[in-house]
Amino acid sequence: MKTKINVMESIYDRNKILAAELNKELSKKNIFCINVLGAPGVGKTMSLMQIITKLQIPAYVLEGDISSDIDTQKLLSLGIKTVQINTNACHLDVHDTVKAVQKIEFSNGFLFIENIGNLVCPAEFMIGEHIKLLITAITDGSDKPYKYPLAFEKADIILLNKIDLKAFTDFDFDFFINGIRRLNPGVPVFQVSGKTGEGFDAAVKWLENKASKLRATIKQQY
Amino acid sequence: MKTKINVMESIYDRNKILAAELNKELSKKNIFCINVLGAPGVGKTMSLMQIITKLQIPAYVLEGDISSDIDTQKLLSLGIKTVQINTNACHLDVHDTVKAVQKIEFSNGFLFIENIGNLVCPAEFMIGEHIKLLITAITDGSDKPYKYPLAFEKADIILLNKIDLKAFTDFDFDFFINGIRRLNPGVPVFQVSGKTGEGFDAAVKWLENKASKLRATIKQQY
Repeated sequence: MKTKINVMESIYDRNKILAAELNKELSKKNIFCINVLGAPGVGKTMSLMQIITKLQIPAYVLEGDISSDIDTQKLLSLGIKTVQINTNACHLDVHDTVKAVQKIEFSNGFLFIENIGNLVCPAEFMIGEHIKLLITAITDGSDKPYKYPLAFEKADIILLNKIDLKAFTDFDFDFFINGIRRLNPGVPVFQVSGKTGEGFDAAVKWLENKASKLRATIKQQY
Repeated sequence: MKTKINVMESIYDRNKILAAELNKELSKKNIFCINVLGAPGVGKTMSLMQIITKLQIPAYVLEGDISSDIDTQKLLSLGIKTVQINTNACHLDVHDTVKAVQKIEFSNGFLFIENIGNLVCPAEFMIGEHIKLLITAITDGSDKPYKYPLAFEKADIILLNKIDLKAFTDFDFDFFINGIRRLNPGVPVFQVSGKTGEGFDAAVKWLENKASKLRATIKQQY
């Protein structure tokens, strides 16, 4: 077992370095990169469609899937520049994202990386992002922060999606928020509906402010 | 990299042997073991509560979670004999289940192992089961078989849960079934509601028949 741990740790460290290098490269190009996390079916792609059509500056997407290009086709149909990453793994790896960004001619803007639908593994790995955006759905229950703490702990912004179905669930909002607060006291939580568009204006404003602050920091650095 | 692959393969093979040994041990005790798979929030525990209260013979649960014992408390409150497994990993491992079954005094019956909420990793690992039961929710969309093929390919029975919310989704049933059929032509799919109990009678009958066939096979073997 000792051999396994050593090998894995060394790969893990190498990945962290590569992710930091990719992040620096994106920053220099004035690209604000967002790692989008969430379980299968919470509405990651629908949320990106809502966010990107509301953004004032260009946005690009790297679309991570184990299999299929269903989501990429949806994004392309809206004219959103999207690169498909098909990986047979449970999370995107920085090697995937390094390779995929080479396929995009960037100008200033946002790069959203939609990770594999998985509330566990993707939270452990940096893939070049400035921030992590976590999406969870009201239909999935209010106990998710208690059962899958790492993703909630590491998120910089959380969207609670499918609030159009709120009336048909027994979602306990206080229990949900208390679960988040004990892990990540300051993280903003926006209630949204990918279907109706409700709630996205505030989330988009938050993202634009965050990107704007980053641009100021980058100007000082480089 | 070569070192990593060899080490991982050897661990993987060892796990397969352990899982087969545990399965044999359970079979000898006349225990039919079901590995319950599904993404976070699809209603795995709610479905188990519906199934177990309808079963004619005793049932036991090993409840896998990264963190918390929320689901174990729910099951215990119904008088269901449940052992909590908390693992900080993305799937249950056969070492977890071997250890946990030692805490149960079995008589004939069903053993349900609720795996970690993850539609990716748990499908890869045998943990002592006779069959895999996959649960997916109508609110998560009809494209899941295309995006997460392995779990659908390996499932022996599939429950499509939360059909009480059918009217509020744009779930494409034909697209869903076609996605399953190309991976796993013979698998039965039951539409159920963990909330209302609808549809579980047929699923429970299927499980009882399957267990009954197993008992006949075991009698010949041992």
